[in-house]
Amino acid sequence: MTSISVLGLGAMGAALAATLIRKGHAVTVWNRTPSRAEPLARAGARIATTPAEAVAASELSILCVVDYAAAGSVLAEARGALSGRDLVNLTNGTPREAKNLAAWAEMEGVNYLDGGIMAIPPMIGEAGALVLYSGSTALFERHKPALDALAESRHLGDDSGLAALYDLALLAGMYGLFSGFLHANALVTSGGGKAVDFLPLLLPWLKAMTGTLPDLAGKIDSGRHSDNVVSNLAMQTIALENIAKASAEQAVAPDFAEPMLRLAARRIAEGHGSDDVSGVIETVREKK
Amino acid sequence: MTSISVLGLGAMGAALAATLIRKGHAVTVWNRTPSRAEPLARAGARIATTPAEAVAASELSILCVVDYAAAGSVLAEARGALSGRDLVNLTNGTPREAKNLAAWAEMEGVNYLDGGIMAIPPMIGEAGALVLYSGSTALFERHKPALDALAESRHLGDDSGLAALYDLALLAGMYGLFSGFLHANALVTSGGGKAVDFLPLLLPWLKAMTGTLPDLAGKIDSGRHSDNVVSNLAMQTIALENIAKASAEQAVAPDFAEPMLRLAARRIAEGHGSDDVSGVIETVREKK
Ligand SMILES: NC(=O)c1ccc[n+]([C@@H]2O[C@H](COP(=O)([O-])OP(=O)(O)OC[C@H]3O[C@@H](n4cnc5c(N)ncnc54)[C@H](OP(=O)(O)O)[C@@H]3O)[C@@H](O)[C@H]2O)c1
Ligand SMILES: NC(=O)c1ccc[n+]([C@@H]2O[C@H](COP(=O)([O-])OP(=O)(O)OC[C@H]3O[C@@H](n4cnc5c(N)ncnc54)[C@H](OP(=O)(O)O)[C@@H]3O)[C@@H](O)[C@H]2O)c1
Repeated sequence: MTSISVLGLGAMGAALAATLIRKGHAVTVWNRTPSRAEPLARAGARIATTPAEAVAASELSILCVVDYAAAGSVLAEARGALSGRDLVNLTNGTPREAKNLAAWAEMEGVNYLDGGIMAIPPMIGEAGALVLYSGSTALFERHKPALDALAESRHLGDDSGLAALYDLALLAGMYGLFSGFLHANALVTSGGGKAVDFLPLLLPWLKAMTGTLPDLAGKIDSGRHSDNVVSNLAMQTIALENIAKASAEQAVAPDFAEPMLRLAARRIAEGHGSDDVSGVIETVREKK
Repeated sequence: MTSISVLGLGAMGAALAATLIRKGHAVTVWNRTPSRAEPLARAGARIATTPAEAVAASELSILCVVDYAAAGSVLAEARGALSGRDLVNLTNGTPREAKNLAAWAEMEGVNYLDGGIMAIPPMIGEAGALVLYSGSTALFERHKPALDALAESRHLGDDSGLAALYDLALLAGMYGLFSGFLHANALVTSGGGKAVDFLPLLLPWLKAMTGTLPDLAGKIDSGRHSDNVVSNLAMQTIALENIAKASAEQAVAPDFAEPMLRLAARRIAEGHGSDDVSGVIETVREKK
């Protein structure tokens, strides 16, 4: 069993610490607001009163705070204790933020692994949870058994920015799903329907439409958006306009459908109205 | 077996007609551009040379063209032949368009059923395809066996606008999914990854996040967005900002994430930063 310190005990940090305790590791915890450590102390954690004390207490430190600004201030407080230590940062950030922190860690003699948690707190330690890692392979290999207690662990490569890139790509996918879900339910409830009653229609539909994504992925990779098109972009754009018009009829903001409508219209104006919707990715890749 | 005319032979109309032929119905077809009827004639359809001839040929007429403007011009051409006939309109449109057409049909003595097809053409006649209907229950009951040849048939009620509302709500959900999918893949491919290789990460993740939708639906119905929150909106908005920042780093347009970022920020400004993401629906319901 590994001695592990968890710094940051928000919804996610607390779930990480509780899971490590439950799986038999020797856990030390620290949080800016000390009261959040109390339930974990009752579960068996040692409480550290400073970030430096937390880092000094364990072979491995896991940092999980709200953003890189917070991560930076915690690490500044722990600075004296960090040299030669193993640090895994599970704070959400951009590829550039991850690479900058990895560069700082190298200067300070800290072994650094970046990670992105693909799970919500109740999934931690359960089947289906995934954490993406990138950066030091040696650190990853050394602590894989402890990290595997949290979730399936996947190391994407030595480039410290990869975990952040893939994490944010997956979150972009999720926020698309959530955006569509909120728009759909705003329409349904505007007509007097209930979101819960709509689920038996919505969930099988989303599952069926998820089944079309592999075909779209192939078109994205090949760039051949005109192959075997069963729903052309011109027709789809009319349906998107109908979503916007119906939203206006029902006093629902059309915001969530607007980017696709705008980018699809641009793609059609560029002469690709008989292509598949996959072609819209070409308008997202160009910066405006 | 029913005699059925299909007016409009685009990707979808052709799939409807081919399926009805395959399932043994007597099918007459018409399309503005006559050449698109030829493969169906070879499969056993009769070709009508005008919309009026098509409508006169069968007990039931199914109209499926690109939009209501096209539907209106086809019906204007068929006008003399329509009185007393059964018409099912599967053209995508808004609830108001459907209700207006139903009112026109009533004036003209046409039995009218509105429908929305929740499938892509290759799914027609296969398990998993669904068509939503609303309007005349009598017409629906009379032709249910023939309609069931196309897809599972679900009648939502007498209000002619309901099928269009639920159709567009489901499409809004789908375009959210597609928007997130394109954004995610723009990020991954900007880092040198392939969309096809990303699927084994993306699909299980989308499935897991789809598993959180029933909880969000309950919050939408109760309006209690602060119950049992495991991912608070303030934290989620920082992740959304990271998606936008990473998009800029990777030369990807942030458009698809912007509505959620903007509406979530508004919700936080209104004092709901510790609520769940479900609460963003309250900002979509108010018109700006
Ligand atoms: N919750 C999820 O569903 C989820 C899923 C995947 C990834 N994540 C990621 O996990 C990280 C933590 O999320 P969370 O859900 O735990 O957020 P949270 O519940 O809002 O907790 C935020 C944490 O950050 C700390 N913090 C904020 N500003 C700080 C500062 N300046 N100095 C020191 N500590 C500071 C807070 O300390 P105080 O208690 O003192 O305020 C608290 O421990 C985020 O990067 C998030 O993106 C979360
Ligand atoms: N394809 C799908 O995935 C899908 C899924 C669900 C629902 N739908 C709905 O099904 C309907 C048809 O879609 P589709 O995929 O078949 O579209 P499509 O392949 O683009 O075909 C459009 C059809 O509309 C006809 N049309 C257009 N303007 C016309 C006009 N002014 N007068 C007469 N006919 C006109 C076209 O005739 P010409 O051949 O003469 O141009 C053609 O038959 C749409 O409302 C769509 O939203 C489609």
